[in-house]
Amino acid sequence: MGSTGAATGGRRSFWGWGLEGAGLDPAEQDALAALVSSGLGVDDVEPVPPPTVDELDLPGPRVRPPASLRPICTDEPYERAAHTYGKSFRDVLRGLARDFRRPPDLVALPRDAADVAALLDWCGAEGIAAVPYGGGSSVVGGVEAGACDSGRGAVSVDLRRLDRVVEVDTSSRAARIEGGVYGPSLEDQLRPHGLTMRHFPQSFEFSTLGGWLATRSGGHYATLRTHIDDFVESMTVVTPRGTVETRRLPGSGAGPSPDRLFLGSEGILGVITEAWMRVQDRPRHRASAVARFATFDAGAAGARAVVQAGLHPSNCRLLDATEALITGTSDGSAHLLLLAFESADHPLDPWIRRAVECARDHGGTVDDGGIRTSSEPGDAPTEAADDTHRGGAAGAWRKAFLRAPYMRDALIGMGLISETFETAITWDRFEGLHAAVTTAVTDALKDAGAGPGIVTCRFTHVYPDGPAPYFTVIAAGAREPAARLAQWDAVKAAASDTLMAHGATITHHHAVGRDHRRWYDRQRPDLFADALRAAKRELDPAGILNPGVLIDP
Amino acid sequence: MGSTGAATGGRRSFWGWGLEGAGLDPAEQDALAALVSSGLGVDDVEPVPPPTVDELDLPGPRVRPPASLRPICTDEPYERAAHTYGKSFRDVLRGLARDFRRPPDLVALPRDAADVAALLDWCGAEGIAAVPYGGGSSVVGGVEAGACDSGRGAVSVDLRRLDRVVEVDTSSRAARIEGGVYGPSLEDQLRPHGLTMRHFPQSFEFSTLGGWLATRSGGHYATLRTHIDDFVESMTVVTPRGTVETRRLPGSGAGPSPDRLFLGSEGILGVITEAWMRVQDRPRHRASAVARFATFDAGAAGARAVVQAGLHPSNCRLLDATEALITGTSDGSAHLLLLAFESADHPLDPWIRRAVECARDHGGTVDDGGIRTSSEPGDAPTEAADDTHRGGAAGAWRKAFLRAPYMRDALIGMGLISETFETAITWDRFEGLHAAVTTAVTDALKDAGAGPGIVTCRFTHVYPDGPAPYFTVIAAGAREPAARLAQWDAVKAAASDTLMAHGATITHHHAVGRDHRRWYDRQRPDLFADALRAAKRELDPAGILNPGVLIDP
Repeated sequence: MGSTGAATGGRRSFWGWGLEGAGLDPAEQDALAALVSSGLGVDDVEPVPPPTVDELDLPGPRVRPPASLRPICTDEPYERAAHTYGKSFRDVLRGLARDFRRPPDLVALPRDAADVAALLDWCGAEGIAAVPYGGGSSVVGGVEAGACDSGRGAVSVDLRRLDRVVEVDTSSRAARIEGGVYGPSLEDQLRPHGLTMRHFPQSFEFSTLGGWLATRSGGHYATLRTHIDDFVESMTVVTPRGTVETRRLPGSGAGPSPDRLFLGSEGILGVITEAWMRVQDRPRHRASAVARFATFDAGAAGARAVVQAGLHPSNCRLLDATEALITGTSDGSAHLLLLAFESADHPLDPWIRRAVECARDHGGTVDDGGIRTSSEPGDAPTEAADDTHRGGAAGAWRKAFLRAPYMRDALIGMGLISETFETAITWDRFEGLHAAVTTAVTDALKDAGAGPGIVTCRFTHVYPDGPAPYFTVIAAGAREPAARLAQWDAVKAAASDTLMAHGATITHHHAVGRDHRRWYDRQRPDLFADALRAAKRELDPAGILNPGVLIDP
Repeated sequence: MGSTGAATGGRRSFWGWGLEGAGLDPAEQDALAALVSSGLGVDDVEPVPPPTVDELDLPGPRVRPPASLRPICTDEPYERAAHTYGKSFRDVLRGLARDFRRPPDLVALPRDAADVAALLDWCGAEGIAAVPYGGGSSVVGGVEAGACDSGRGAVSVDLRRLDRVVEVDTSSRAARIEGGVYGPSLEDQLRPHGLTMRHFPQSFEFSTLGGWLATRSGGHYATLRTHIDDFVESMTVVTPRGTVETRRLPGSGAGPSPDRLFLGSEGILGVITEAWMRVQDRPRHRASAVARFATFDAGAAGARAVVQAGLHPSNCRLLDATEALITGTSDGSAHLLLLAFESADHPLDPWIRRAVECARDHGGTVDDGGIRTSSEPGDAPTEAADDTHRGGAAGAWRKAFLRAPYMRDALIGMGLISETFETAITWDRFEGLHAAVTTAVTDALKDAGAGPGIVTCRFTHVYPDGPAPYFTVIAAGAREPAARLAQWDAVKAAASDTLMAHGATITHHHAVGRDHRRWYDRQRPDLFADALRAAKRELDPAGILNPGVLIDP
């Protein structure tokens, strides 16, 4: 079979976040262990050593590709192990437990859309499941090929070779981009044109454009254009029945949007090989401030005032006091609202001043010197401009944000439960939801014999009509992986049931995958499910694409 | 059968725009005739007298509703005539020609969603076509029941009794609203709450929320949130198989959006009976300016600079010199860019000043005193605030805009061709499209033996990646209606072919209906059509809903 190449800058971890060796160093690990030991009263924090590929007892592949597909398929143990799971708590826990009993039989690495079509033809003819794979950062079981195995084999279809920005239209500020490009490479390719996509999910380094589109990823902008959906001009999707290419347009009213059928389709209708995306001029002007609130609800009122004022901040993130404390953003004495604006066009003083007034109207305190503004002259803004706004609380939080997945893996290695979940809800129902979720998770931890633990909340995005709250749960769990997974499953079920009961969504930007199916099935209208199943039967008659995600085959 | 009631404030014209008697008065009519005579060299401008219901020779209804549905059905000649057509040039022309050969057999006026369901049950069992009808302002054949008649009868389903704002959530700034409410009534019901939807399509007075949703209507905001789509939290849709009720949320990433399947579905999947809509605080602060440009392309560059600056004006409308002249907006010596901002929260001086700078950067001229700003103190803004910004060019244009449909009817009555079409396209291709459309229409008029005439262009909405150009065609045509319709059909085909060839959309906000089908079929990916047909088969197994719109039954 073909050579698959290595990822640039080091090999990806096959069991956890990021690159091999890029996790916590021994000093960080010791500091974390001390914190866990003192903060949560956990005695045994001896980390599980990371697994190696040699240790794994992978079952042999059950299918062999035809000669024509061999150049793009591999059954190397490392690749099969690395494509077994996504990156949720349950995935990392199973990885650390050396549980790789259901890897994909093959990993395919198509070079272009024609390869994808040929691969789907073969899978369709043989009844082999084909699971599209971008960066593998799913935290909802969205790329778990083994979970949908009908016994006829499963192929993980990794798009990483479709990694180019193909065409740039500077006049319309748009670019034609292949689906398998990773975040950093995408930005590297846009930078020479003075452009940026500025879609920065937490997974940015290890996720792809196609994955963002398939899962309706949430990005950099806290308001206005929050989801990747808002940046799509057109898409190219290879389905088992052929290729769908939508018309590239700035807007249209011609029937239901074809793009919107594929946005959020999570690989069940086709493989997104390319898209025309709206991009931005690189920002040169920035303004930021941090407001402190005595209560989270006051902070929520401040955030609501800002977003309803129509100011469109790029950041409007509310952190509760505990989250602020554990991320090193503050001493935990206040709830923080991080506000920021950015523009390629104009200084932002009036914008940030008014946003700070909105926060103050609701009891927020901002030091007079607490408003930072900067403007970079000239036409070639540099990354350095960001640094002005990365001091203090905002900078500390940003650093913790990017490091969080590595930290999470370390906590799991020490025997803890560490996971997040997120939602969105209208303002009128937020306070009730917040209280109910916190209680449900706390009670569920206790009932499962886990804990003590912490439950924190932040807003990742805010809308005029409601916030997108994001919850983090860290708790002492059973040392034995299967027992700990059962504990988390109970907590997750309690949390999800509470979201459903309060009218929130099961996911604002983590997607549905396999893990959210039980609640998605209740949230989604039954007749819409019928329509979606009918659409799938048209595009994927053999039912090979990511079976079990969103709808049953 | 039931009493159907009369529209508030006078009866709707059954053949043309608006209310009976609200068209041009004799003086206006004479002035227009003189203008047409001198401007286009038309000799015979004697207007066709409007038809009366008594003159019509309507075929008798072929179906009778069961007893249970009689209270909500009528076969009154006025109602059947009034529901025969929409309001396009071809509709008004046929109306003036007394051509009412294919009216709906019945007009149904359901009182609630249960009535809609009962009606669809009966239509499904009998194979009778059911054509949802909001305000009847379709200009694309979207409500023409006669056009989809399979011989088993057709019912026009008029939602006007579902006219309430049912619930208001001031905290989230959202309202639950019935689908049949007309624009003015919707605003009247929101006003006591200090709220407004501010969705003002040209048809505002005579169109409904459900119609806006079904056709992806374009509204008040020239940038950012242009389509009604952007204001939807959730929808209730009665399909022949049951009711779909989506979850009310400020945002979600849970699979493909159910709402987006119904937005733009033009009545082929179900009847929209209710929606939770995002609404606005009533604006108190306003700022506006008019920039004059020597060429339309320079004006386009100015509009592009404004929209790419991220300022989000509520108005950013570019009028070509001819359009500015004939609407009385200017003397025709310049192309005009109308700029306006509005806010419920903050004064807008920095916004308008920067927008004017963008216009000047591209050769636009704005008098130093040409920037108007106003702020209304207190919590209860009045309509009067708008008036400050309705003087001068912007005010003249707005007046002409609202009066245009009546003017159009008068022109048709005088024997002219008078129609509009619209599209959207990315900036890189706009200049080529603009030139090609103008040439194609001019040539087609000549080839059809029509003319002389004028072809004007304006931008109704603008996006960072492209404008939505709107074209108006006024030309001397054949006096005989069928011959004049054939002339327009040739012009429309030439224009639409040009849109397709240049990669534009067949419609930005007029919808597809029956009239745009030929081009929509080329624009829309075939596999998406398969998926949409499959979805329709699930929701409307008997194929009774608006047959022939978007896809074939």
